[in-house]
Amino acid sequence: MKIAVAQIDVIPGRPETNLKTCLEAQRRGFNEGADVIAFPELCLSGYLIGDLWEEQSFVSELVDMGAELCAASTAGVTCFGNVGLDATQWGEDGRPRRFNAAWVADRGVLMRHPVFDLPFFPKTLLPNYREFEETRHFFDSRRLVTQLGRDRKECVAPVNVEIAGAPAKLGVYLCEDGWHEDYRFDVPQILKDKGASVLINLSGSPFTLGKEQKRHRIFSSQAKKLELPLVYVNCTGMQNNGKTLFSFDGNSTVYNAKGQVTHEAPHFTPSFKVVDTATARPRPTAAPSEMERIYQCLKNAVGIYMDRFALKRIVIGVSGGIDSAVSAALFTDLLGPRNVLLVNMPSRYNTDTTKNLARELIENLDTFSATVSIEASVALTKEQLDGVTIRRKGESKTLALSPFHLENVQARDRSSRILSALASAFAAVYPSNANKSETMVGYATLYGDHSGFLAPLADLWKHQVYSLGEYLNDAVFKREVIPRGIFDIVPSAELSDDQNPEHGAGDPIIYGYHDKLFESWMQRWQRVSPEEILVWYRDGRLEQELGLEQSIQALFKTDEAFINDLERWWNAFKGLGVVKRVQAPPVLAVCRRAFGYDYRESLMRPYFTRRYLALKSDLIKTD
Amino acid sequence: MKIAVAQIDVIPGRPETNLKTCLEAQRRGFNEGADVIAFPELCLSGYLIGDLWEEQSFVSELVDMGAELCAASTAGVTCFGNVGLDATQWGEDGRPRRFNAAWVADRGVLMRHPVFDLPFFPKTLLPNYREFEETRHFFDSRRLVTQLGRDRKECVAPVNVEIAGAPAKLGVYLCEDGWHEDYRFDVPQILKDKGASVLINLSGSPFTLGKEQKRHRIFSSQAKKLELPLVYVNCTGMQNNGKTLFSFDGNSTVYNAKGQVTHEAPHFTPSFKVVDTATARPRPTAAPSEMERIYQCLKNAVGIYMDRFALKRIVIGVSGGIDSAVSAALFTDLLGPRNVLLVNMPSRYNTDTTKNLARELIENLDTFSATVSIEASVALTKEQLDGVTIRRKGESKTLALSPFHLENVQARDRSSRILSALASAFAAVYPSNANKSETMVGYATLYGDHSGFLAPLADLWKHQVYSLGEYLNDAVFKREVIPRGIFDIVPSAELSDDQNPEHGAGDPIIYGYHDKLFESWMQRWQRVSPEEILVWYRDGRLEQELGLEQSIQALFKTDEAFINDLERWWNAFKGLGVVKRVQAPPVLAVCRRAFGYDYRESLMRPYFTRRYLALKSDLIKTD
Repeated sequence: MKIAVAQIDVIPGRPETNLKTCLEAQRRGFNEGADVIAFPELCLSGYLIGDLWEEQSFVSELVDMGAELCAASTAGVTCFGNVGLDATQWGEDGRPRRFNAAWVADRGVLMRHPVFDLPFFPKTLLPNYREFEETRHFFDSRRLVTQLGRDRKECVAPVNVEIAGAPAKLGVYLCEDGWHEDYRFDVPQILKDKGASVLINLSGSPFTLGKEQKRHRIFSSQAKKLELPLVYVNCTGMQNNGKTLFSFDGNSTVYNAKGQVTHEAPHFTPSFKVVDTATARPRPTAAPSEMERIYQCLKNAVGIYMDRFALKRIVIGVSGGIDSAVSAALFTDLLGPRNVLLVNMPSRYNTDTTKNLARELIENLDTFSATVSIEASVALTKEQLDGVTIRRKGESKTLALSPFHLENVQARDRSSRILSALASAFAAVYPSNANKSETMVGYATLYGDHSGFLAPLADLWKHQVYSLGEYLNDAVFKREVIPRGIFDIVPSAELSDDQNPEHGAGDPIIYGYHDKLFESWMQRWQRVSPEEILVWYRDGRLEQELGLEQSIQALFKTDEAFINDLERWWNAFKGLGVVKRVQAPPVLAVCRRAFGYDYRESLMRPYFTRRYLALKSDLIKTD
Repeated sequence: MKIAVAQIDVIPGRPETNLKTCLEAQRRGFNEGADVIAFPELCLSGYLIGDLWEEQSFVSELVDMGAELCAASTAGVTCFGNVGLDATQWGEDGRPRRFNAAWVADRGVLMRHPVFDLPFFPKTLLPNYREFEETRHFFDSRRLVTQLGRDRKECVAPVNVEIAGAPAKLGVYLCEDGWHEDYRFDVPQILKDKGASVLINLSGSPFTLGKEQKRHRIFSSQAKKLELPLVYVNCTGMQNNGKTLFSFDGNSTVYNAKGQVTHEAPHFTPSFKVVDTATARPRPTAAPSEMERIYQCLKNAVGIYMDRFALKRIVIGVSGGIDSAVSAALFTDLLGPRNVLLVNMPSRYNTDTTKNLARELIENLDTFSATVSIEASVALTKEQLDGVTIRRKGESKTLALSPFHLENVQARDRSSRILSALASAFAAVYPSNANKSETMVGYATLYGDHSGFLAPLADLWKHQVYSLGEYLNDAVFKREVIPRGIFDIVPSAELSDDQNPEHGAGDPIIYGYHDKLFESWMQRWQRVSPEEILVWYRDGRLEQELGLEQSIQALFKTDEAFINDLERWWNAFKGLGVVKRVQAPPVLAVCRRAFGYDYRESLMRPYFTRRYLALKSDLIKTD
């Protein structure tokens, strides 16, 4: 069977553009002799489109366009993901019933589901974790089959079509249907049992670091176990849910009936290829470095975001630290140096070392630059507000700005005043350079360094930002654009005399330990809390559980010091960190669990369990 | 049967406090002779706690505490909502299986579900719309019963207990189980069919304007139809999902078997009452004005938010306009005038009229006040950045700030510089005074008036803000604290010479029409888009569909003018509006569909359907 793997760039919310892309690919596929053209899941609408599913006019448009794509399938079979509408029934949300569905047309005729008698094949397994919330929008076909009083397995059916003059059964299924492990419902097995001769998985699957290896394992063993060729079709592009952006990596793959890869489409790039499932030969899968993949992910999503909203230029505040340096190099690579304006905004607290490093970076990248001091403006704010008298009837008070308040004044002055205005004047936007470690514990100022149009690095731990810096020098620019001194100097905010990196005074975060600690709170599928941490600490296996390189005793001399640190950061993560993240810029997801829509949180006071408190009191008693 | 209706204040994420509250109410109930003590849904954890459900240590704590509350039920029956854990099974998210469940204990013994053989009774109908996303966190008991090969109805069962020495069947169910209309699964009917002699609905139901009337209708007719007394127990308090805050209104109600109200607990206030379902007499339900309810909702949620995070003071920028005036009056009522600092921040563009109105407001409220001009600071920014030269190798450019850029500079100067610093110095926070109309179309400046710790008015349309102003004068302060002139003057941003309200030059939003238009896009259950609007316009029934008071032709002379306006605001709503809302302060939900977690959106380019474009071209052709 010759299947056209149409790995298209799906633009969310632009059905007219996506339809055009599909029609072109369809024509090309039939011209090249394909029996079947396969497109990704929800390829007309996009997948992450928020509550746009509730607009009936939009859904009707998708149904019309789906019919058009089917009607154009004159020379063979077309299968694609699209919303399925049953306007005669209500969903559990009280709106016309929608399904996440596979549409299949054979020579212009739309195929119908044998049990549901609907002109599409609904997705069976609807994910509801991380950024996924399919039951919010789509009706559950496992529910429907039960309501009809039919056997559960009847919700899954292969599609009867004609291939090269002979009847054939296509096992068309959607994304999560192939990841059935936790559902106790083996969709591909049912398709095989019902006679499917090929598995075609239509996906809309966002990139997550490490997921690609897992996918190869799962789909390869699925094909092998069922002894069927398996075609995985994914889209490329960028989609988002407001607070979190996702990069779609494509990487559509064809496996033969032995589970070997016979075709692999590129990552993050649209691709089109007609693959014969019978004759294609195995080929080894490429495995680039983790950093290469991360960089592809960033560049793809940031590039599309800027392109989609016609953003051509960027302003970046460069401090001489690693985060802004990586950000500057990334955007310079993406937009070209003439579209980048790097600004150094020194105050009395910035050392010559970091100012020189910033200057060196700018020279290396050869972008536009400017230096704008914040001294005069901070002095004006101090003069206007420090010592200001407030009055009411028969009463007055004098207010003072503390040194800590003045640190925040500096941070806000740099972003909300200078970068915002320069971005306007340069017809640009500015990014937030915050990394995941800082974002986690709110170590940034709202409307200050926690502002910007996008936070491209906010799903990378500090140690990953350093590695990305090395990657930019070694693999992207192939020269030291980020000066060595930026890697070597201790990270510091330089907002007061106490934060002088020349004297080794840096951030309060001990990245080597805290990055691993924070990761355990956030990214493990079975997330842990201070309770588990304290058990591991007590039992002497914290280093092993977190994968620390040094002994925890080398960092904390006493149990009390360890516990104080643990509580400090847990409180920051669950307290002010949340307050700040609610108003922080969108985060570009890279690792598992990005802030925003992937990892959801409420404004609450941090909590320690009773078991934690008991463990703590035991430890401190015996200290 | 004597049932203690324990309408407690549930604090999300504070199980130790909630357990204490429950134990006290339980003791009191048994002391007062109750047979059954009934608590709200998820009363130990809270309902809106984000992904905290994924922390196993937290879930275990809730299971332990549930067991404690059951063990303390020595003198009778206790039923309450709590997470149910089946640690022997996985959920579809690959984590230990959790249920949103009713726990029932009779004389210390935990009752088990007859079919599931679990020590709790899972909720049957899991809502997934608006702010609800229960399938993200909880296993679906309708799915479970099917997987066990049992009849669908077997997931619902009344609880067998002993009341006054005789066996009794309690129909305990959870919140949405009583709102079954769209689910085709009548939980209370099944409870009745299986012999329940009373219905006890444990709820965790956030306030929405108008929902209380609907609830009374639904529960009253449920009791009447099934000829059973019905006890509805709801919590009070405030819960949130980061971007959106919800006020919980309590208003627990007991209906007799005729559907008459025999007890009604207050709104937004914890309450405890032992009610005899047999003897209680009907009483009329109170129906306050809509504005009274809105004000209760606001005051409850804002008050709890400030209290929970130990915020005692507020700084508010008052412009002489209605939004900041209402905000000032609300916070003064809430915190007392000594904890409020009202700041006027004039520039050359502020008229004497609005400056005087602001001064009058301050005097009426008798709060602390200060005047801080933004002239010097804006001049400094202009001096530093307007005309700044940026350079790169062999190239330089001079940047300029346009009058529009300078409008944003003013807005950011007021908020990110002055209000932020004054809030620090006054040990306070500052609110965003944006209303829903502005928020919808992004008519506010990021890090400017779109900043603040909370946007308490951002779910009220402009016309509702005016009504709330009247209510504050008439019913709260009982004198004209908000000067009449603030109601009368045209709303204006006063950021340029063109925006002079003394000359009648106000906002571009025509609130009388646009409020209704925006509401149709956002708040209707069957949401509409420009396609439907244009059909109504063409057919001459726009006024009727939207409830406009004046003819649309009085506002727009030509079809083209109407269409340009329609597209302008749709583009703003779906374009820059989203960009700004992603970083906007949390919104307090009042009406149906608040921005943030209730109404979810993605950053996409605005879309017009093909039907819309065809309609438009027809109209313009004949113009």
